[in-house]
Amino acid sequence: MRIVNNLKYADMPPAEVRKLAREGKIDWNTSGMCAGFAQANLVILPKALAYDFLLFAQRNPKSCPVLEVGDAGSRDLEIIARGVDITRDLPRYRVYEKGAFTGEYTDVSGFWRDDLVSFLIGCSFSFESALLEAGVPVRHIEEGKNVPMYTTNIDCVPAGVFGGKMVVSMRPVPQDKVVKAVTVTASMPRVHGSPVRIGNPSAIGIENLDKPDFGDGVTINEGEVPVFWCCGVTPQSVLMNSKPDFAITHSPGHMFITDIKNTDLKD
Amino acid sequence: MRIVNNLKYADMPPAEVRKLAREGKIDWNTSGMCAGFAQANLVILPKALAYDFLLFAQRNPKSCPVLEVGDAGSRDLEIIARGVDITRDLPRYRVYEKGAFTGEYTDVSGFWRDDLVSFLIGCSFSFESALLEAGVPVRHIEEGKNVPMYTTNIDCVPAGVFGGKMVVSMRPVPQDKVVKAVTVTASMPRVHGSPVRIGNPSAIGIENLDKPDFGDGVTINEGEVPVFWCCGVTPQSVLMNSKPDFAITHSPGHMFITDIKNTDLKD
Repeated sequence: MRIVNNLKYADMPPAEVRKLAREGKIDWNTSGMCAGFAQANLVILPKALAYDFLLFAQRNPKSCPVLEVGDAGSRDLEIIARGVDITRDLPRYRVYEKGAFTGEYTDVSGFWRDDLVSFLIGCSFSFESALLEAGVPVRHIEEGKNVPMYTTNIDCVPAGVFGGKMVVSMRPVPQDKVVKAVTVTASMPRVHGSPVRIGNPSAIGIENLDKPDFGDGVTINEGEVPVFWCCGVTPQSVLMNSKPDFAITHSPGHMFITDIKNTDLKD
Repeated sequence: MRIVNNLKYADMPPAEVRKLAREGKIDWNTSGMCAGFAQANLVILPKALAYDFLLFAQRNPKSCPVLEVGDAGSRDLEIIARGVDITRDLPRYRVYEKGAFTGEYTDVSGFWRDDLVSFLIGCSFSFESALLEAGVPVRHIEEGKNVPMYTTNIDCVPAGVFGGKMVVSMRPVPQDKVVKAVTVTASMPRVHGSPVRIGNPSAIGIENLDKPDFGDGVTINEGEVPVFWCCGVTPQSVLMNSKPDFAITHSPGHMFITDIKNTDLKD
C-alpha cells in the first residue's frame, strides 16, 4: 500500500485523478485520494448475466449496494460521475475469462464489447470516514492493515446463476460506542448500511477472529465487541463462484473514484 | 370503496386473506385488511423486459422501491410472503396486451407463461400508518378520498425502453409537523421514503393543486404545506408509456398483502 504517494491527491478533484489514471500516470491504489468523495467497486459483465447480477443485488442490498449501472455498451456513467471512460479511469483492473483470472491491466479498453454492462457498487471506505468523524475507532486503519473479512454460514438469497455465502467485515468497537456505530452506518445504506451482527461470531460460523478469510487480523481490546458488516467481497465471491465466461473487476484497492461526496450517500 | 366490508378482515392473517382471494371470495379493494401488514403494488412482465424494468427501479428507487422480484416463471415468492400464487392471490388484476388495457380479472392464472417475472413494489399505505401513529394527519384518509397525485416536470432517470415524468402524491401537512413527516417517512425508504419536495408546487410543474392528474383533490388548510412524495403510479405510468407487448398489474387499490409488517420496512 503506497499510501504516502497519495497525500498529494487528497485534495484533487475526482475527474483529475480519473484523468491521470486514464493517461497511465496513476496505477496504484486509490486509498486516501480525493478525500470526502465516495469510491466504488467495479464489476463489468456481459448483458446476458446482467439481469441475474442486478437481481442478486436487489435481493442482497446490504451486501451489494448498487450505486449505478451503466447502459449496455456504454463506457460512460450518468449519475455518480460524468465524462468517464470506465475501461481506463481506474488504476488497475482484473480480467476473468471462462471463470479464471487471466490478468491484471491498467487499461481494459481493448476488451470492451457492446454487450458489456458496468456495475458500480458502494464500498465501506465511505462509512469508515463517517465512523471516525463520529468518534468510533477503526482498528485496521489505526494498525495500518486491511480490514479483516470472514466467510459466514449465512446464505445470500440466490438469483439465477448467482449464489453463495455472505462475507462480512469486522471492526472491534468499544462497548459504549456500539450504538453509535449502528446509527452512523444505518444512515448510509448505499455503502452497506447497518451491521448484520453484533458480537457472537460463532453464531454466524466464524470460529477464529484472528484468522480472517480475507484481509488481516486486528487487535480486539478488552471491553470491545466485534461488529460485523456486509462486505463488498460478497458480490465478487458470488460472481467468481458462478465462473462467468467473461468479467472485469477493479483490482482490490484500486477503486473508481466518483464525483459524489460520502455525505451524499446519507439517506 | 367498500371499506366497511373490510373491518372483519383487519385482524385476519395475510395468508388467510390471500386464500380467500384465491378462492374468489374476496374481489374488492384491500384497504384496511390485515392491519399492520405491508401491501404491495404488482407488475408482471415478460423476462425480455425485466432487466430494463429492474434497472429503471434501481435508477429511480424512491419512485420504484422494489420489495421482491420473483424468479422467471415462478408464481410463488420467497421473501415478502410464501405459499403464494401470484396469479390468484390478489383480488383484481389488469391485463395489458400490445400496450392496451384489455381487461380486468380476479384470476390471471390462464395468462401465465414461463417467461413472466413478478415485481412487488412498496406502497405508501405503509408510511401513511406510520404518519398517523406519529400524529401527522393524512387528509385524504380523513376525507375518505383517494390521495391526490400529480405528474411533475421532473424526468425519471430512463433505463432501456422505460422513461417518463415522475408522478408524486401530495399530503397537506401542518407547518409544525413537516419535520416529523420527513423523518418518519425517511426511515421507510422501501415504501418511497422521504418527500421529494416540500411546498412550491409550481417549481415541479404543478399549477393547480385542486386538479390532480390522478386521485382526488383534498382540502389544504391555512398554515398547511403541501408535501410531495414519490408515488407508485410512476412505475405504472412509465410501464404503460413503453407499450409493452404483455403486462399484468394489480387493479388500483386491489393490492398484494404481504407477510411482512409495516414496522419491518423501517431501516
